[in-house]
Formats: sequence, C-alpha cells, structure tokens
Amino acid sequence: MHEPYLDKFFTGDTLAASRLMSIVERGGLEAEDVLDALFPRTGRAYRLGITGLAGAGKSTLVNHLIRCYRKDGLTVGVVAEDPTSPFSGGAVLGDRLRMIDSQGAPGVFIRSIASRGSETGFSEKAGELADVLDAFGRDVVLLETIGIGQLEYKIRFAAHTTVVVLTPDAGDDVQSLKSGMMEIADVFAVNKSDRPGGREYAEDLRSMIKLRSRGDGWDPLVVATVGVTGDGVDELAGAVRLHREYLEARGLREEKRAQALRARVESLAEEKLREMLWQNEYSKSRIDGLLREVAAGRKSPYQAAAEIVKSVLAGNRDRS
Amino acid sequence: MHEPYLDKFFTGDTLAASRLMSIVERGGLEAEDVLDALFPRTGRAYRLGITGLAGAGKSTLVNHLIRCYRKDGLTVGVVAEDPTSPFSGGAVLGDRLRMIDSQGAPGVFIRSIASRGSETGFSEKAGELADVLDAFGRDVVLLETIGIGQLEYKIRFAAHTTVVVLTPDAGDDVQSLKSGMMEIADVFAVNKSDRPGGREYAEDLRSMIKLRSRGDGWDPLVVATVGVTGDGVDELAGAVRLHREYLEARGLREEKRAQALRARVESLAEEKLREMLWQNEYSKSRIDGLLREVAAGRKSPYQAAAEIVKSVLAGNRDRS
Repeated sequence: MHEPYLDKFFTGDTLAASRLMSIVERGGLEAEDVLDALFPRTGRAYRLGITGLAGAGKSTLVNHLIRCYRKDGLTVGVVAEDPTSPFSGGAVLGDRLRMIDSQGAPGVFIRSIASRGSETGFSEKAGELADVLDAFGRDVVLLETIGIGQLEYKIRFAAHTTVVVLTPDAGDDVQSLKSGMMEIADVFAVNKSDRPGGREYAEDLRSMIKLRSRGDGWDPLVVATVGVTGDGVDELAGAVRLHREYLEARGLREEKRAQALRARVESLAEEKLREMLWQNEYSKSRIDGLLREVAAGRKSPYQAAAEIVKSVLAGNRDRS
Repeated sequence: MHEPYLDKFFTGDTLAASRLMSIVERGGLEAEDVLDALFPRTGRAYRLGITGLAGAGKSTLVNHLIRCYRKDGLTVGVVAEDPTSPFSGGAVLGDRLRMIDSQGAPGVFIRSIASRGSETGFSEKAGELADVLDAFGRDVVLLETIGIGQLEYKIRFAAHTTVVVLTPDAGDDVQSLKSGMMEIADVFAVNKSDRPGGREYAEDLRSMIKLRSRGDGWDPLVVATVGVTGDGVDELAGAVRLHREYLEARGLREEKRAQALRARVESLAEEKLREMLWQNEYSKSRIDGLLREVAAGRKSPYQAAAEIVKSVLAGNRDRS
C-alpha cells in the first residue's frame, strides 16, 4: 500500500518519492490513486523538455543545466528516457550516474524509465513521473527524451520549454532538418559545435529561423554548445530563461498547462472507454458471433463495429 | 453519389474502381457505404505485402512481380505507400509510372496513397483500398509499404505473405537487423545482391534464420535479387508461392483473414466509441466545466476522465 509513502512523501522523503514513482511507473489502479492524491500539489514546477537524436549529447547538457539550476538555489528533478530495456542492463544509466557529480545530493532527483517497446506509453508515463517530482516540490523538472519519429511531438504537451539538441554532423545541412523539429523547438542547442562547420551550422540555423519567422511571437533561439567543456551552457540556460519570461509575460504558461491537462483528460477518457469496450462480459459474448458473420460476408466490419458499440452501451445501461 | 459507380464497378469498369478508391481514401460515411457494399465480394484476392526501407528497391521488385503474375494470366492490383505528400509533388510516383510498362493495361491497377503525416492511418487505408481491388476481382493485390518504425508490423494484418526487402549496404551486418523485421518476414529479398558482400549477406541471413528456427512451421526464405537486371525475381515469386501453399495446406490463409477482420472490427469499434465521446453534445457541454475543475486542482485528470465517460453513457441512455 502507498498510504505510508504518501505521508513521508509530503515531508520530503526521497525514498518515499522513489517508491511512489515506481508505483506510478507500474501503472494500474494503485498508480491512479497515487496520482489522484498528488494532483492538487502539481502545477508549480517549470517543465523543461530536452529532445534530440541518440548521441547528440543530451545527457551531458542536462548535467550542465542541473549544475546551473543548483547554483541558483533551485531544486531539480529529471525524468530521462532510457533506451536500454530494463532487461538488457542499464549501461546508459550507469554512465549517467557516474557523470553526475551532484547525483544523490538532496537537491537533485533523477529517474530513468525504459522506453523500448512502448512508443506512445513513454510520454504519458514521463508526464506522470514529472507530476510526482512536481508535487515533491522540485522547482525545475527536466524531461529528457530521444527524438525519433513522431515521439518528439508529444513532449510539447508536457513541457513549458522544449530544447532540441542537434549536432553538426558530416553531410548534414540545415535544410535537411525535419520540419517537426522546427515546430517543437523553443530553443535549439547546436552541440559539439567545436567540430568543423559547427559555428556555421548554428549561423545557418539562425538565418533559416529568421526567414521563416512569422514575426508574431517567439522565434526559436539558437545556442552553440560544447557539452564536454561546458562552453555555451550558461547561454543555453539564459535562452531557456528568456523563453520562460516570454511565456509568463503573456499568460502562456497557464495556457500550456491547461492544454496539457485537456490532452491528458481526453486520452484518459478514451482509455477508459476502450477498456470498457473490451473488458465487458456482455460484449465479449457477442463479439465472436459477430466476427463469424463478418467472416461469412454477411456483415461488413463497419456494421459489426456499430453493433458491438451499441451492445456495450446497452449492456452498460442494463446494469446501471 | 457512388451508386452509379458501384454498378459500373461490378461490371469491371476501371474508371469506376478509381473513383470508388478516391471515395474510400477520403474516408467518412460515404467511404463506409462503399466498403459495406463491396465487402461481400472480398476475401478472394491473395494479398502480398512488400516492405523495406526507402531506397531498398521495393518498387522495382514490385514491377518485376507484376510481370511474373501477368505472365501467369493473373490480374494484379497494387496499393503503394507514396512517401511524397500530395502537395510536394509526386516525383516517386512519376518515376514509377514511367518504369511500369504494363501500367494502363487492363490487368494491372496501381494506386499510390500519401503516407506523410498519418502513421496509423496508412495501414488501415491501404487495407481498405486492397478490399476495393479485391472486390474488383484482382487475383493478386500487392501492398507496398515503407518499413520504418512500428509501421511495418501492421502490414501483417492485411497481407497473407510479407516480403521484407533488404540491401547489403556498407557496414550493415545481419546481426544488426531489427528483430521486428525477423518477426514479420515470410520471405526476405536481399536486393542489390550484386554489390560486394551481397551473396554473403544472404548466406548469413539464412544461417541466422536456421539458428533461430523453432522447427515447428515456416522459416523465412531468403532470395538474392538484383532489381535492375531482374535476377532472382522468378525465385522470389517462387518463394512467395511456396509460402502461399504452406498457408493453404494448413488452413492458415483463412485464419489470417479471420485475424485481420477481427483486428479491423476492433479498431473500427474503438474509433466509433471515440467519435461518440468527443462529438457528443452532452459531453461537450460538460467537458469545459470539468477541465476548469482540473485546472483548479479540485479534480484529478483521472477523476475528470471517469466523469466524462459516465456522462457520455448517461447521455446516450437518455436519448435511446
């Protein structure tokens, strides 16, 4: 049971926070209870998303940002997507733990979660774990995700500011940037910018952003960084701060939260309805019969689907 | 209206088939009507999926397979995923049309659909267009899809046999093959096998399949092909035929169709329920109020979701 953990959690007990995060990560009804209990205390933390391809140096930049925020006296939580599965060992996590000198210090709390095999699941779980860290009183919560395919879009719903980390690799040019990247970035970090062509890449990116500017709000800032030396990291933290000030001056921070909550409620409602559909005894008993009709060509898939929905609703009505 | 097209469609009119496919591609209620009307005539065509990364040479192999099947006197339909958006022009499709000498001949019908921007949508639309071609009487329907991310898994539900097209590119070795590829392939085409290391790649793949064999059914066949010259294409068609015979001898062809229909009905039922949730006036009027409660921290997202579902069901009950 989680009740004793909740009490300890609210007194700032790190172990209790860790236990509650494990419960949330497992999911199910107990996770729901925990999140219900924590929800009224969320909404205070600033959520910063860091996304980019594997190998771009996200973790190193995250470590630098942690130091920046700690220097300012802020507490930090991190939810990091770990591309290694829980079964194949945690090499990436291991590296990371060694790299972070502040790990274990009371002001920093880092949680890695496995992403393999659940493309849609990650962003929701990450958002829920961020909620736990938020309710735990972290001033800043960093969400580190690996941007592949459509996943990177979703970070938007959980983060106030999104940093996209790029590297000026051989053969890349700014034109080949996926348009999705342009749409989600509030700040670009051009990392490993000490490589040949690095500064030019950042310049090209700035020019492209200028060309595309609609002039009616925020144009993504571009910061050249070198993760290994820490060059440009203060500028990166500064760019994030500018975006935060931009959001807060216009009431957009609250709007972002409202949007994220709406998306969350909608997705939870759909999930509940879907569960109802397939875990309903009344409908189960009818589905096989309908599928036989479909296989025989007597009903179309659309007709069968309509009948299933109708019978689930009827079954629900009879019971209530 | 589609009624006149339906009559012509059933007499084998290609233009009517093309119009009905456009209606199906657009979706909505009219598409549903068309698919309902055609459904009793589906289930006869053999569905062959061809998947692989962009540039692997899928289209060239598809063109060769079309010629093979035409030589055998079979009619062919093709549904091809076109990675160019309808707005950015159809360079890929243009190339393909020039390449296919049999295009426009009555025995071949090719339909390209845009895939950009709808990761889940493609496989469903492709399956529905395959239904149209099936009802139109095509003996073989080829489904050509670009295998990236999770998409390739879904082809299974629509295809009887799935060919995964690989190329022995620099630096690749068989060990690095995504395990998903192994799971969906009934046949591997190692294309561009005249490249250095091509034959060895095919051999390595065969060895790996042998090692992993569970010995209880079908082990994927490996065929070395050279799209440009047509080498190995007859062997590829032969491998597909062997898999088809394997399925038919064990009643697995019908089982695959039953599975695909079940998946289709389930996904349609979920879609209908989801529509009901968000297009329901009764729930719309409550959602904004609930979201305000959530934003104020008085209700958690889980509680709000549960209330929305409850009110949709109640609203539906009151009306019926």
